[in-house]
Amino acid sequence: MKKKSIPSVTINRLSIYHRCLEKILETERGEELKILSSLKIAEITGINSAQIRKDLAYFGEFGKRGLGYPVVDLSGELKKILGLDKKWSVIIAGAGNLGKALVKYKGFQKRGFVIKGIFDNNSSKIGKRLGHIFIYDIKEVEKFIQTENISIGIIVVPADSAQEVADRMVAGGIKAILNFAPIHIVLSPEIKIHNVDLSIEFEGLTYYLSLC
Amino acid sequence: MKKKSIPSVTINRLSIYHRCLEKILETERGEELKILSSLKIAEITGINSAQIRKDLAYFGEFGKRGLGYPVVDLSGELKKILGLDKKWSVIIAGAGNLGKALVKYKGFQKRGFVIKGIFDNNSSKIGKRLGHIFIYDIKEVEKFIQTENISIGIIVVPADSAQEVADRMVAGGIKAILNFAPIHIVLSPEIKIHNVDLSIEFEGLTYYLSLC
Repeated sequence: MKKKSIPSVTINRLSIYHRCLEKILETERGEELKILSSLKIAEITGINSAQIRKDLAYFGEFGKRGLGYPVVDLSGELKKILGLDKKWSVIIAGAGNLGKALVKYKGFQKRGFVIKGIFDNNSSKIGKRLGHIFIYDIKEVEKFIQTENISIGIIVVPADSAQEVADRMVAGGIKAILNFAPIHIVLSPEIKIHNVDLSIEFEGLTYYLSLC
Repeated sequence: MKKKSIPSVTINRLSIYHRCLEKILETERGEELKILSSLKIAEITGINSAQIRKDLAYFGEFGKRGLGYPVVDLSGELKKILGLDKKWSVIIAGAGNLGKALVKYKGFQKRGFVIKGIFDNNSSKIGKRLGHIFIYDIKEVEKFIQTENISIGIIVVPADSAQEVADRMVAGGIKAILNFAPIHIVLSPEIKIHNVDLSIEFEGLTYYLSLC
């Protein structure tokens, strides 16, 4: 499996396929639906069927030509490919509103992302909890990452401290960062950083509104 | 300009190009850099240059072959295409942590998204403010959308009330919805709905972590 050469947009779509198959398997109809054609997946996901076949072909032959994809096998295989068959330990830097919202976000735990700690530099927050998660001093983050074997760091601190926080996370040994701060963080290339920009989600809509 | 046939992934990338050009124009170097090649845009955005040329070609010939794209013109054109040359009135349904975080999110206002009101069904929240934004009773949302000419609704209510809230928004005349609730909302096809799923952002990372 030549994983490394797969474009990141394909990975995002694999996530969507996986989620769609899981939803089908959760419903009664899923038990009946043993085979799903790319056309049917296209209908559910809104992604065109040629793209779906191309994306899934990166990982070898799941489906039978003219028949379709076996739902249970494909779902399981995508889960493995996406690394969702494991649990991932996560920390959050920033105990503000977005940090609070993420702690309560049910989608994370369901998908195997376990939030192990929150970090902040505000002494009035340190030592308290958000939900059931303890808030630590940001100065302890390197050590915490090492001892707790944390894989992923989420940055929800203000823009002007985001780079420093990311550097601390990397110094602790983190390999992947999800950054919500509206700033470009510079890290060495072996660290995977994904910038979440919520206003990009909006812009898709205004494009369509401009057509009205 | 055949806007309607452009894939949504292209629209998302146009957003990224626009943001990247704006950033360049904000810096000193931007004034010097009058022309930018697709290779240079590729270097900055991480999107490959053939894809960039293909995306920009949807909107006619911006660049000169072998030379590149004029930074100021391209940025202005993308802004218009994306509907970012206008102000958009927005409401938020749900005065929880995510609602609070979105009110404070500076990226929105900067891009012309003006939050006009927040709506909730919790009587202990109604009549108060989040930041400088007033919290109204969700029952008033239809009327508010009409009188204030609201274009976009953001849904950050719990999953079990998301459909009802979306129906109310559409009844009020809203044409576009950004949904953060982890549920599939069913609306008539002329309404544009964009589902934000924060765990998809994570899955890109776990794929790469699985390669380590």
